[in-house]
Amino acid sequence: MSKIPFIPNDLSAELNLRARRLHDIMRRDNMNSLLVGGNSNLYYLSGRFFRGYAYVCVDRPTLFFVIRPNGFEETENVVYIRKPEQIADILTQRGFGLPSRPGLEYDELSYSDVVRLAKALHASDSTNGSPLLRKARMVKTPFEIEKMKADGVHQAAAYSRITRLYKADMTDLEFQIEIERVLRLEGGLGYYRTAGNLMENNMGSVVAGKNADSPTPYEFAMGGAGINPALPVGADGTTILTGTTVMVDMNGSFNGYQTDMSRVWALGDIPEIAIKAHNCSRNILHRLEAIGVPGTPCSRLYDEAVEIARAEGLHDYFMGHSQKVAFIGHGVGIELNEQPVLTPRSRDLLAESMTIAIEPKFVIPDVGAVGVENTYVVRESGLESITIFPEEIQEL
Amino acid sequence: MSKIPFIPNDLSAELNLRARRLHDIMRRDNMNSLLVGGNSNLYYLSGRFFRGYAYVCVDRPTLFFVIRPNGFEETENVVYIRKPEQIADILTQRGFGLPSRPGLEYDELSYSDVVRLAKALHASDSTNGSPLLRKARMVKTPFEIEKMKADGVHQAAAYSRITRLYKADMTDLEFQIEIERVLRLEGGLGYYRTAGNLMENNMGSVVAGKNADSPTPYEFAMGGAGINPALPVGADGTTILTGTTVMVDMNGSFNGYQTDMSRVWALGDIPEIAIKAHNCSRNILHRLEAIGVPGTPCSRLYDEAVEIARAEGLHDYFMGHSQKVAFIGHGVGIELNEQPVLTPRSRDLLAESMTIAIEPKFVIPDVGAVGVENTYVVRESGLESITIFPEEIQEL
Repeated sequence: MSKIPFIPNDLSAELNLRARRLHDIMRRDNMNSLLVGGNSNLYYLSGRFFRGYAYVCVDRPTLFFVIRPNGFEETENVVYIRKPEQIADILTQRGFGLPSRPGLEYDELSYSDVVRLAKALHASDSTNGSPLLRKARMVKTPFEIEKMKADGVHQAAAYSRITRLYKADMTDLEFQIEIERVLRLEGGLGYYRTAGNLMENNMGSVVAGKNADSPTPYEFAMGGAGINPALPVGADGTTILTGTTVMVDMNGSFNGYQTDMSRVWALGDIPEIAIKAHNCSRNILHRLEAIGVPGTPCSRLYDEAVEIARAEGLHDYFMGHSQKVAFIGHGVGIELNEQPVLTPRSRDLLAESMTIAIEPKFVIPDVGAVGVENTYVVRESGLESITIFPEEIQEL
Repeated sequence: MSKIPFIPNDLSAELNLRARRLHDIMRRDNMNSLLVGGNSNLYYLSGRFFRGYAYVCVDRPTLFFVIRPNGFEETENVVYIRKPEQIADILTQRGFGLPSRPGLEYDELSYSDVVRLAKALHASDSTNGSPLLRKARMVKTPFEIEKMKADGVHQAAAYSRITRLYKADMTDLEFQIEIERVLRLEGGLGYYRTAGNLMENNMGSVVAGKNADSPTPYEFAMGGAGINPALPVGADGTTILTGTTVMVDMNGSFNGYQTDMSRVWALGDIPEIAIKAHNCSRNILHRLEAIGVPGTPCSRLYDEAVEIARAEGLHDYFMGHSQKVAFIGHGVGIELNEQPVLTPRSRDLLAESMTIAIEPKFVIPDVGAVGVENTYVVRESGLESITIFPEEIQEL
């Protein structure tokens, strides 16, 4: 079998740019080296998923240690290993020396893995590299933004087929299954990465009527009892009833990046309060799109959203009803839940080229969830939506 | 909203049985207490997924600390908290005292989480509780086996529709998408849990023709390039050609447990070597079904399988061709990859009521993968298959 390059030529400049950004962040934090093993961070540094490690040193090109798959060319910067215990010798041979206090991914890797890697590097001390990697990944490169825009186009194409998928007397679950299928036919991976172990789901959720007010253990804005206590989120098999809404919040994961977009469908006439809340969600988004320029505190986006909902008398329904969440948006990229998070206590400021999903949603008891979620790029002029699709409530 | 019991009445005896088994294992290891926060272990101990913790003490009922969702009755054993830092005070108030050396899930929780929990318990030392939980979960209760049997029935029902899903000139990906749909319509959760961070996939894989020999970074027996470097496994969009096989290895995850079953479909006549290898796989399974009684070393199952493949001159194709894996099966239950693992170096012995998937597979270059995978219960009389479905290669 002929060997293939680990870093394709057309990705080389892009990966160098990412490494330089990470180096700058590391220098400001007095961190000289980072040994990375988490899937999402490896994907950021290499553009591919592999089993192995990346050794990032502030004054050198990244060194990739590959365990699996086989078939890549070995080069100055790409070395096959069987286990991490081989890394120290290779670093020494190549003149890197051993780090006295390496950064390791305390937040992504298991306790056992961090202890093993520190020992493999003969390091008596280590430090948490996760926050620096999150910070680097928080501001996207132009290349990353193009990938996310492509996600948005595919997701909108799939969403444009949703209305036609509905059939009378369908359950929320049957509706979701047909939506999953068009997302997959559109090129969806059927899988998306999240940070932490607190989000579990398949391809997103379709929540109808009363089920929107079922509390979940997960950090999702909307509820849903799910079809089994083993995965208590989203569609629960109830029939979509006249006078209720269906919130579709399916993942736009096509190419290693993703977009997050929610839209609402309704069967028959729905109560005025639900229409009012949906319009309020759109008003919130228009306001945040305007003030969401570089330098705006993330907490201000949250506060303004809550204030608009409150002024409309809709606060009881905002971001959940029987159980609420304390955010209105979140960074999105390789993982669905990246930095920054739009919470009242956030100390982050928006910066050019951050990508964030904003989801001012309302749960109206006995009616369902309403509201719009878009994914945005932070620009000098405000927030640019990359999930372009009609925002009105659509008829089933 | 009326409160619901955290532990439903009909699960109470079952959960007590699991706790007693874990207590016995803890006592043999001189571990008095375990603070559990990993999703799969929480599901084992409570029968539901929730955000929070379970405190397992060898001489007391398990104490559950719930963060989300809201709506459960608080009882002597179920307490709502906002954060783990509240746990120590509650333990003291309830007369548990604080553990001097608590067990924590070093292998499941992040380094940051383990450090945080140890600190929250004011523990100057802690120990790895993960191996004990794996050991407890390795041998299933009758209740768990019934759930897995139900998975097997649903998975077989979905597989029985596969032949009819094929249409001329379909790609492997299109075929997989239709199979995903019938699995979901059959009640599949569209999601399954795995141990570690080295397995990523959506609902399983459908691997056709040459693609079976594409190496992957994952710990899967079969290959597949995937449709994007971000998820390099399984179907890659190639058309299913005459004279090639399609291996369907989709997950049977319906109720919190799961079964693992692979079957082969073929388009037109396939080469004699592929038929021979498929029959060899079935011969291996028949042999292992007979010798797989309590007390048999897992390494012996591996060794016998390799020996049968070698005697047939098929060793070059066994468990991969251009990249091989060094196991022929694995425990399965709440997670797809549980203990024991059938490797040459395993020191585990089979025990009554273990549940294991055995997958003697062959990759025939330019033809595809062949072989059968079943999920079994270890019984006094040998292995009992719970994935009952025709094992012959089926025509498309």
